[in-house]
Formats: sequence, structure tokens, C-alpha cells
Amino acid sequence: MAERGNTKGLDRLLTLADGVFAIAITILVLDLRVPPGLIGRELPAHIADLIPEFISYGISFAVIAIYWQAQREVFEDIESSDTALTWMTFLFLMAIAFLPFPTLLLGEYRDRQISVIFYAADAAVASLLLVSISWYARSGHRLVPEDIDEEQARLRTAQGLAVPVVFLVSVVISFWSPEIALYSWLLLVVSDPLVRWAWRRARRSSS
Amino acid sequence: MAERGNTKGLDRLLTLADGVFAIAITILVLDLRVPPGLIGRELPAHIADLIPEFISYGISFAVIAIYWQAQREVFEDIESSDTALTWMTFLFLMAIAFLPFPTLLLGEYRDRQISVIFYAADAAVASLLLVSISWYARSGHRLVPEDIDEEQARLRTAQGLAVPVVFLVSVVISFWSPEIALYSWLLLVVSDPLVRWAWRRARRSSS
Amino acid sequence: MAERGNTKGLDRLLTLADGVFAIAITILVLDLRVPPGLIGRELPAHIADLIPEFISYGISFAVIAIYWQAQREVFEDIESSDTALTWMTFLFLMAIAFLPFPTLLLGEYRDRQISVIFYAADAAVASLLLVSISWYARSGHRLVPEDIDEEQARLRTAQGLAVPVVFLVSVVISFWSPEIALYSWLLLVVSDPLVRWAWRRARRSSS
Amino acid sequence: MAERGNTKGLDRLLTLADGVFAIAITILVLDLRVPPGLIGRELPAHIADLIPEFISYGISFAVIAIYWQAQREVFEDIESSDTALTWMTFLFLMAIAFLPFPTLLLGEYRDRQISVIFYAADAAVASLLLVSISWYARSGHRLVPEDIDEEQARLRTAQGLAVPVVFLVSVVISFWSPEIALYSWLLLVVSDPLVRWAWRRARRSSS
Repeated sequence: MAERGNTKGLDRLLTLADGVFAIAITILVLDLRVPPGLIGRELPAHIADLIPEFISYGISFAVIAIYWQAQREVFEDIESSDTALTWMTFLFLMAIAFLPFPTLLLGEYRDRQISVIFYAADAAVASLLLVSISWYARSGHRLVPEDIDEEQARLRTAQGLAVPVVFLVSVVISFWSPEIALYSWLLLVVSDPLVRWAWRRARRSSS
Repeated sequence: MAERGNTKGLDRLLTLADGVFAIAITILVLDLRVPPGLIGRELPAHIADLIPEFISYGISFAVIAIYWQAQREVFEDIESSDTALTWMTFLFLMAIAFLPFPTLLLGEYRDRQISVIFYAADAAVASLLLVSISWYARSGHRLVPEDIDEEQARLRTAQGLAVPVVFLVSVVISFWSPEIALYSWLLLVVSDPLVRWAWRRARRSSS
Repeated sequence: MAERGNTKGLDRLLTLADGVFAIAITILVLDLRVPPGLIGRELPAHIADLIPEFISYGISFAVIAIYWQAQREVFEDIESSDTALTWMTFLFLMAIAFLPFPTLLLGEYRDRQISVIFYAADAAVASLLLVSISWYARSGHRLVPEDIDEEQARLRTAQGLAVPVVFLVSVVISFWSPEIALYSWLLLVVSDPLVRWAWRRARRSSS
Repeated sequence: MAERGNTKGLDRLLTLADGVFAIAITILVLDLRVPPGLIGRELPAHIADLIPEFISYGISFAVIAIYWQAQREVFEDIESSDTALTWMTFLFLMAIAFLPFPTLLLGEYRDRQISVIFYAADAAVASLLLVSISWYARSGHRLVPEDIDEEQARLRTAQGLAVPVVFLVSVVISFWSPEIALYSWLLLVVSDPLVRWAWRRARRSSS
């Protein structure tokens, strides 16, 4: 019982989570390097060679930003933490903290299918963990207030499940072209409003 | 509507922002290295060779400090966050988190124009994003209280726009001398009081 | 007296602690590297070679997660900080911040006993410091409220002492097989409920 | 006036400071490396060679812990921030964030005087900035409440000035032996109670 309804404990968990996100997006830059001693046109040429790394840097920054916003929304209604929620949150943070590795892979080997699959698998696991956290906290109003909007919660679960679907589709596309698979992740930016639109349409037609 | 007026969400966004700034200024030191095994006068000679790196370290620390203070002022009146503000803040943080890369470039190639342009472009983008955040939150009192001082807000916008102007001027100077361009950034330290002085003078003469 | 009963000081100490934990779990990924320029089957082969590093990454993430939760429980009842508590907390944080080093050792040399002993020693020191913090704050209600549950506090001390016992046992096992010693740490995940069960059983039989 | 008495701004400044301290003490470990591929007795031999690095790691951790506690005490009574205090705090944080560089130097070249002087100079600058912050905030009750204990403030200034004195003495000792100079820093741990004892004695004899 001492572990249930831990409000201050949740605050610290979210501080930790914000720290992990802040570090994950900031250390991405450590993989962008220029060796010393380049002369003449070698320097601009080397920087031009870094363009794939710049792109994977930008993609990873955007992906982590999307996950940060998704977890912020999931934790918005959650009032306290217990042992299970804390462990699920740590697993989610592990998936996020691991992202710089597939990002490195993508920067160096973006035309290889294995890079895309690694990245997509990591990101899909992160999404599924986030959906699990949301489901666990909300089922039976375990860690959310009684008066929470159920409809809103279901919409969010649908939005959360759209993310691993995008990554799964990208894995399928990667058999055809790893680069197009990579750009298909930009669908994530529009998936939230898209799911919301589909949701409202479905509700209207059912009522 | 659920995404509007998110106060707790803004607190977490600012915690994340402070984390990104803290990491960005602290990892700058990771590029200052001394190889092991130097003997006799080699060690002081190697440290003396690092002086350009020390200077670009100091400049970047000061630039990031200026941006941190600028965003603190911008967010001072903002009461809540929505999706657009969150994304603009992430883009701003990306420009900040990216700064260690042009800093590295400056430390190794400070006499090359490309280094100055890279740095100035990144910093100018950061400024423009900050001005956009301020404009977005304040226009129509979208995310600020009704009783906010409009005059003060306009002064801040003017101060914010002075920053990309300084960086633009430095790019022009860099065609003549990259090193002088670099030192022209120190104008940023005095640009705030300068704009304030010009602003008050302009207001007095118009009234 | 000015140093006693420092509540705001404790808040800042915990913010620092959360920062150290967040960085320690996030920089673990920096040791997972893939060199550029691999062609054909070299890339999947290199990633397969990283599997021991992935395992030691996962173990360290789990160990740090366990310690974070343990310290969160220890500090739950503590209301303020004094000089001694602050120093003990810094020593504890040093043991945590040091963990990436034995993690690196484990990833590269997991079949060597010295890696296991290094890791186990560091982790055991961290546990003992945490137990000391708990004992120091609770003895004579020094830094906890008067109405704290003594029974609960004793249970926690027992749980805390179980951790160095697990690591000591793993060192003994490491003489026989370093790899099995490594997996014995997974006992930590079940040690908390196990000690709680034994505790309740012992109490029931004594009453 | 808008920049005076900024309470929320001070909270964010301290969050940033705690972040910088957390990162500075956690990234120290990144300089402790063991190359892959060592066989037989090479591994324990290499770890034994790291002992100077372990010592400079421990010293730097302790020094940063001392500074964190010193700044926590200085900021305890400060209620708000203005532009000057913010800049002084950033300069102080720069001196702290720079410490991993002289730490690296000490680990690799602890028998060289230049390492000791670099470290001592950085640490002395940090102390002097902290004393300046305290003096600035307290003079004329600029940023502290009216009812603050003046006597206590003067004692703290004396304690703060003891730190650069220790580092200055260590520089003198370094002409004779860099290693003994290094250990003389441990005086910092006792300097606080020592100054307090001398202070009380002086007050008693003057009254």
C-alpha cells in the first residue's frame, strides 16, 4: 500500500523522464564530427558528406519530440505511480535512451535495410510501452481520477497505436527502398490529427 | 481544446528546455582534449595550441547564456502551451542543441568563412524561432494573460530581432575577415540595453 | 543550526540526484558504436558482435532503475537535509555515476572475473551507502517526522541490505563462472518482494 | 524594473545550475576507458594503470560536491535574480563546467605542475565568482530579505574566501611537489568548520 498513490514519487519519475529526453536529444550532436587539419576544398566537401548525418539528426530530433509530447499527454491525467507503472516507464525510457544508437546506424548506413528495421523496431517498442502505460493507469481508474473522460482516453489509445503501425508499414516499405521507408516516418507528424479526424467521423456515423 | 491552456505541460516543457541548455553548455568541454604521453615542453605547447578552442568554448558558452536569458524572458509571461508552441520550442531547442557542432568547427577552423556562416546561420535561426514563439503566444493574447504590457512585448520583439541582425552583419564581415566576424558577436552582450535605449528615445520623440 | 532542517536544500539535492541518474542511464548508449564503411555482410556481423554490449547495457539500465527506485523510497519520508546527509548522498551518487565504467568493462570482458567483481563492488558500495542514508535520517527521527512507521523503516533496511548480499553471492559465483554471476544479479528484481514475504512470515511467527 | 525581483526566473536559473552540476560530475566517468582486446594479465595491468585517473576522478567529484554545497548555501537566502546575478551565475557555471578539462589533465599528467595550476586556477575563479554573487545579492539587501542575519552572511563570505586561499597555497606547494599540492586540496573538506571555529573565537575575544 505504501507504494500505491505515490504523488511525490510520480513527480520525481517525470523529472527523471524529462532529464532522459533532454539528454537523448542533446547528445545526438556528438556524432556530428569534423576531423582537424582539412585544407582548402576538403572542409566544405567533408561537411557536404555529413548531409545524411544531418538528416538522421533532424529525423531523430523530431521522433524524440513526438514521443516526448505523447508521454506528456499520457501522464497528464495520471496522478500517482506504483511499482508496475515505474517499471513500465523505465522500459519506455530505455527505448528512448537507446535511440541514439539506431540514429548513428541510420546516419552511416541509411541505404541499408537493417538500419531502418533497427530504428523502427526500437520506436515501435517505445510506442507499445507508452500505450501499455496509458492502458494500465486508466483501466479501473487505477492511477487516474474517477471523473476522467473515457472517450478522450480511448481516442488517445487509438492515436498511440497509430505510431507502431506507421513504423510497421515503414519496415514493409524498407524491403523495397530503405530511404523511402525513412521518409515514411514523417507520417507521424500528421498521424495525430488524422486519427482524431477518423475518430470523430466514426463517432458521428455511429450516433 | 484538451491541448489548449496546458499549464502543467508548459512546466514540463521548460524543465526539458533547461535540461537541453544545461547539457549543451556542459558538453562543450568534451571537445577540449589533451593526448596522453606528451613529454617535457610538448604539454604546455599542446595546451597553447588549444587557445582557439578555449576562445570558441568561451564564445559558445556566452552565446548559449544569452539565448537562455532571452527564452527565459520570452516565457516569463506565457501561461500555458499548445501543440504549435510546443513544436516551435522543440525547433528552437534543436537549434540550441546543434550549437556544439558549429562550435567544434569554429575551434578547429576559425579562419575559415564556412565556420562563421554555419555558426551565424544556426544562431540566427534560433533567434527567429524565439521571436516567432513570442509573437505566436502574444498575438490575440493567445497564451498570455489579458493584462500583459503590450509596450514591453513590442520592446522585447525589437530586442529579439536585433540578434539575427548581429549575426547577419557578422556574415557580411566574414567575407572580409572570419576572425573579426567572430568577435562582432560580442555585440550581442550590449544589443539588449542598446535597443532599449533606442526604443525609449524613439518613443519620447514621437510623443 | 542553519544547516539543519533544510527543506528547500533537500529539494535541490533530489533534483541533482535525478539529474545524475538520468545522465548515467542515458550515456550508457555512447559505448554502443558501429564503425563507418562496413560493406555487405560485415554490418550485420558487426551488430551481432555487439550482442554482449547490448546485454550489459540492458543489465546496467535495470540496475540503475532498481537503485533509483530504492533511493526514491529511502528519501520518501526524509523531510530535510544536513551536511552529513548531503555528503552521504554525494558518495552514493558517485557510486551510481561510476557504474558506466564497470558496464563498459562487462561489455568488453564479460567472461573475465575482474569485470564482475568491479561491477559488484561498485553496486554493493552504492547499496551500503543507501542503507546508511536511511539509518542516519531515521535514527532518533533526525530528519524524518515523529509519526513515521518504525516497522516499515526496518523492513526497508532489510530490503536494502539484501542488495549487497546478492552482489556478494555473485562474486562467490564468479570464481566458478563470471557469466552465471552476471545473471545472478537478476535476483535483485525479485529480492524486494522476497524480503517482504520473509519479513511478514517472521513477524507472524514471532507474534 | 521588469528584470528585478524575478522569483520564477531564479527557480529556472537554479534548475539550470543543478543540471550543469549533475552533468559535470556524471561525464567525468567518460574519461575512464579500457581498450577492447586485452588478454590475460594485460587487463588487470591496464586497470592498475588507471589508478591515477581514479584518484583524479574522486578528487574532482569531491571538489564539485563542495562547490554545489557552497552555491546551495549562497543561494539559500537569495529570493530573486536580476541581469547581473544571472551573468555572474553563468560565469560561475562556466568555471564548474570547465572542470572536466583540468581533471583530464590531472589524470594524465598529475606529476606536472601545469596540471595543478590549471585546476587550482579554475577552482579559485569559481570560488571568487561565488563570493561575488553572495556579496552582490546581500549588499544593500539587493536580492535578499531585509531580516537576513548579517553575521551569518559575513561568516559565509569568510568561508567562501578560504577556498581560493587553499588553492593559492596549493599552487605554491606545486613548485615543490605537484602531487602533494593535489592532496592539499583535501583541506577544503575541513576549511568550512575551521573558519567557523576561528570566527566564533574571534567574535568571543572581541566582545
